[in-house]
Amino acid sequence: MTTSEFNVGTPRHDCLVDITAEVESAVKDSGAQEGFAVVFVPHTTAAVTINENADPDVMHDVLKQLNEIVPWRQPFYQHGEGNSAAHVKSSMLGCSETVALSAGRLTLGTWQGIYFAEFDGPRSRRVIVQVVAAAAEA
Amino acid sequence: MTTSEFNVGTPRHDCLVDITAEVESAVKDSGAQEGFAVVFVPHTTAAVTINENADPDVMHDVLKQLNEIVPWRQPFYQHGEGNSAAHVKSSMLGCSETVALSAGRLTLGTWQGIYFAEFDGPRSRRVIVQVVAAAAEA
Amino acid sequence: MTTSEFNVGTPRHDCLVDITAEVESAVKDSGAQEGFAVVFVPHTTAAVTINENADPDVMHDVLKQLNEIVPWRQPFYQHGEGNSAAHVKSSMLGCSETVALSAGRLTLGTWQGIYFAEFDGPRSRRVIVQVVAAAAEA
Repeated sequence: MTTSEFNVGTPRHDCLVDITAEVESAVKDSGAQEGFAVVFVPHTTAAVTINENADPDVMHDVLKQLNEIVPWRQPFYQHGEGNSAAHVKSSMLGCSETVALSAGRLTLGTWQGIYFAEFDGPRSRRVIVQVVAAAAEA
Repeated sequence: MTTSEFNVGTPRHDCLVDITAEVESAVKDSGAQEGFAVVFVPHTTAAVTINENADPDVMHDVLKQLNEIVPWRQPFYQHGEGNSAAHVKSSMLGCSETVALSAGRLTLGTWQGIYFAEFDGPRSRRVIVQVVAAAAEA
Repeated sequence: MTTSEFNVGTPRHDCLVDITAEVESAVKDSGAQEGFAVVFVPHTTAAVTINENADPDVMHDVLKQLNEIVPWRQPFYQHGEGNSAAHVKSSMLGCSETVALSAGRLTLGTWQGIYFAEFDGPRSRRVIVQVVAAAAEA
């Protein structure tokens, strides 16, 4: 079991940053062939999500619809920092994803990429990757 | 640690298909008594979720309310395939769930079932189940 | 690998109860130094989520916005118990979270706490914590 981390510089207030290559690199560094990887975001105004890696319009549409669902301003928001919407979206998407490994690779679907979801950027953010290797006899 | 997969044929455009029996079967086949199971959906317009297994009206209400939250058509959607709503719901529900095992069974609550959430069917879909057994001494 | 559980008495119909101390206690009792913890909620009208642990206004705003997104009454709800909104929110936030351990502690971010999300209380609820220790050689 190895735990590593990397940084993500998010370029805009709201964005989905493809971190698949960084996670795959952590898996490769671990040497694990079979097992699984846990990707964890230690922030409360961001999240991790898995979604389409081909057409960037999907990312545009997902972000825009999330902003429809969770408006940035609401008359009832009390949190002084003014970023409650980012906290709501963080809980909706969640801060961990678990993906199985096979032959040293993530078993993602053909169209799946792993994304860091930024809801209150731009910021420098951290991502923790834990790789759990299957025991030799398994 | 064993990784297996099974197929799900989803009968409608939007539906929640109970896959608890298939996941339990994968757990049984693994021989694991203690440990946990990761259920992973390798698709970007579908998800996995755990919810009530008793009254099918709950599934109806969940799907209908999700469609209220994420309308199929939005003037700002850019993705050419026209299924951006399915991608949004995929990220909202997520593509992995982790459930502990005890005495060879999933430790689901009395009213919990595991559901494949289809948001752009009908299609033939895959589900990956990874079972991690506790070491004998644990 | 150890599996334990604890109870949460939720004080209101909708609330977020900080269970970080209980999860950390389960980790400590397990003796695990490196590894990870899975927090699982075996209920279908509740969830587990990780969010800000500092300003309680964030919890207020998150709950209130979730109620905007998922109204308690909808003309199309069919479920006889009348708590379909709670089921929707349970699927949106999810019933499991996975957090890595380092030196016997959860690797939560500075501002992260683990919350039991109650959407149909007050009730007595259960939380299952599974702690997986890294093997000695890892």
